[in-house]
Amino acid sequence: MPLLSHRIQSAVASPLRKYIPLAEAAKERGTSIYHLNIGQPDLAIPEKMMKSIRAFDHKVLPYSHSAGIAELRDAWAQYYQSYNIPFTRDDILVTTGGSEAMLFSLLAVCDPGDEIIVFEPVYSNYKMYAAMLNVVLVPVPCSAESGYHLPVRAEIEKRVSEKTRAILVVNPNNPTGTVYTDDELKTVVDIVNAHDLFLLADETYREIVFDGETHRSLFSFEGVNPRAIMIDSVSKRFNICGSRMGCIASRNKDLITNMLKAGQARLSPPTLDQYVILDLFPDVKEYTKRVCKIYEERRNVVLGILKSEPSIVTPHPKGAFYIMIGLPVASADDFVKWMLNDFSRNGKTTMVSPCEDFYITPGKGKNEIRIAYVLETDQLKDAMEILVDGVREYQKNH
Amino acid sequence: MPLLSHRIQSAVASPLRKYIPLAEAAKERGTSIYHLNIGQPDLAIPEKMMKSIRAFDHKVLPYSHSAGIAELRDAWAQYYQSYNIPFTRDDILVTTGGSEAMLFSLLAVCDPGDEIIVFEPVYSNYKMYAAMLNVVLVPVPCSAESGYHLPVRAEIEKRVSEKTRAILVVNPNNPTGTVYTDDELKTVVDIVNAHDLFLLADETYREIVFDGETHRSLFSFEGVNPRAIMIDSVSKRFNICGSRMGCIASRNKDLITNMLKAGQARLSPPTLDQYVILDLFPDVKEYTKRVCKIYEERRNVVLGILKSEPSIVTPHPKGAFYIMIGLPVASADDFVKWMLNDFSRNGKTTMVSPCEDFYITPGKGKNEIRIAYVLETDQLKDAMEILVDGVREYQKNH
Repeated sequence: MPLLSHRIQSAVASPLRKYIPLAEAAKERGTSIYHLNIGQPDLAIPEKMMKSIRAFDHKVLPYSHSAGIAELRDAWAQYYQSYNIPFTRDDILVTTGGSEAMLFSLLAVCDPGDEIIVFEPVYSNYKMYAAMLNVVLVPVPCSAESGYHLPVRAEIEKRVSEKTRAILVVNPNNPTGTVYTDDELKTVVDIVNAHDLFLLADETYREIVFDGETHRSLFSFEGVNPRAIMIDSVSKRFNICGSRMGCIASRNKDLITNMLKAGQARLSPPTLDQYVILDLFPDVKEYTKRVCKIYEERRNVVLGILKSEPSIVTPHPKGAFYIMIGLPVASADDFVKWMLNDFSRNGKTTMVSPCEDFYITPGKGKNEIRIAYVLETDQLKDAMEILVDGVREYQKNH
Repeated sequence: MPLLSHRIQSAVASPLRKYIPLAEAAKERGTSIYHLNIGQPDLAIPEKMMKSIRAFDHKVLPYSHSAGIAELRDAWAQYYQSYNIPFTRDDILVTTGGSEAMLFSLLAVCDPGDEIIVFEPVYSNYKMYAAMLNVVLVPVPCSAESGYHLPVRAEIEKRVSEKTRAILVVNPNNPTGTVYTDDELKTVVDIVNAHDLFLLADETYREIVFDGETHRSLFSFEGVNPRAIMIDSVSKRFNICGSRMGCIASRNKDLITNMLKAGQARLSPPTLDQYVILDLFPDVKEYTKRVCKIYEERRNVVLGILKSEPSIVTPHPKGAFYIMIGLPVASADDFVKWMLNDFSRNGKTTMVSPCEDFYITPGKGKNEIRIAYVLETDQLKDAMEILVDGVREYQKNH
């Protein structure tokens, strides 16, 4: 039998889903599970979108333009302009989720063997795509103790090689929830300018920033155009992950023209999904303000309970809806399995993601977990108390 | 400024869209255009799907399972079983269109530099993806004179090298409309077995076969499992190209497991689109029988008019909704431009696709065009008469 490609075999299966069989077994035993393991919002589909779906009355369902329908590209452009990022329709390609925006960006920027500098822990889907596209991710280590903030310029710069093509910044960060400071972002901009690199800016969680702070886009810095590429998605902003609607935006015309070839190869993004999200854009700030408040309350619940247990290393994340923490255990993988197989309180347990697979450097992240706070506060409180109880109980037995 | 990757630069922009500016200019001058240039059905969205869209009442829109929702995988499985192809849910991955099924197949089968044998002319999107994934397409030439049927075994087999990983068969064929004979298919099966290759079977147009014949799936041959991979899509079958719903199916468990990693990297196919096509599957044979009859009538109109002009090389395609023909011109590219810029009859002209970009071998296909018969018969008749008039007029002046 012919062998599969090395590149598909070298990609590591998603860490976010491999514990599902254990969770299913726990459910069969009658244990109910709080899912804090997947970054999937629990909030409802916006009513405006439901109205658009019910009112959809097109006679035919053709491919759209490969760059997306003009109305949606305009909606994205106006959205960015409202944040003082001067994109126009022609700077924007609609993609099938932020995932496809990633895929196209890696294809456009890297040939096989080329390198991209990332800050680890790194969103695992970037790792999978990089493996499949023969792109080498070069990690700059960040730690729970420093809140996963970036190291000094020299620490980043020493990873630049002749093969380096770009630096990737996910801000607010998945999986850590960290929001980078202006100084950190400025450092990255200085490095891409000094070394003539592309800058990949994943700002999907732009509106979910806490503690009265506001998000600073990489596009607000002088000198980022035309080397910067925005990777974006409506999934988290409007609580519609399943719509798979994202975009790429850049002031680099040559880049957009070339990326459109990747867009043409897949013909078009889904047509229906493009039309039914149009009405969400005009209210985005009002809507996301409410959403952000919900997540901030949840984060406070999570932090309050975690900080009651001093053996847990608990940073203070300021955005997205994730927190990564350091546990007093040798293997978070074993702990997560134990929570599903051997632990419950009042017939309930909590499922989280171990973080080893968010790292590239072997051996790192073994004691860390990611919590996605995607439950309403009452449930979240219960889930977190069960988790901390679990940590204490696990320590006694291991 | 950093340079873009060689792989994105080496991909050629889609030949099907680059004449759009000329068409727009013609429209501005008041010329109306019959579009026979894009394989986009003109038929309406099935009423059952419209009902499902209007009735959609989910409260949240989460990512689906990366392999697709169980209901849709089951629907695909039952669909295949109705054709005596024994796939089960676990053999099937839902993809975002046939395009993504192609992408995942190329990733799973080929490392950079590996080769896939294709029959040229070849669907241009395969060319674009191959360029971006550093896969080499090795063409076996087919010609209008032989109806684009396959050559003898030795002609195919001499293209097998140490780098060859698979043979790709698109049947019924896009762009030629050719339906391969049982003997041709058997030859391909014998070759993949003899040389231990994968077999990529794109059978998207399965139900659109004319002249009372029926489609023979490559999966009906002994010995194709587990080396065969089905690439499929509902786009043409249900006239819903914009839904971007396809699938990969294979009895090769290792392959499906590894391809699921590519599926996980993009999280999930669009969720709404998966649900709203479910009701289409039970009636697929009845529905596609009607659709096939429509296309057969159209093909007959197209053939009748083309055969009135003996200087045109007109094969007799038996499926899909395309025909490729040889024109008595030196440059079909120039002819297509001339039709848009300089020719009209009663204020109308016809737009078709030149075929050079469907070829890999330099210089081939220069005098060929592809016609997609995606207009109702009255309009199609007019469009084809204008086209043949154009051919005669162009010959006088060139």
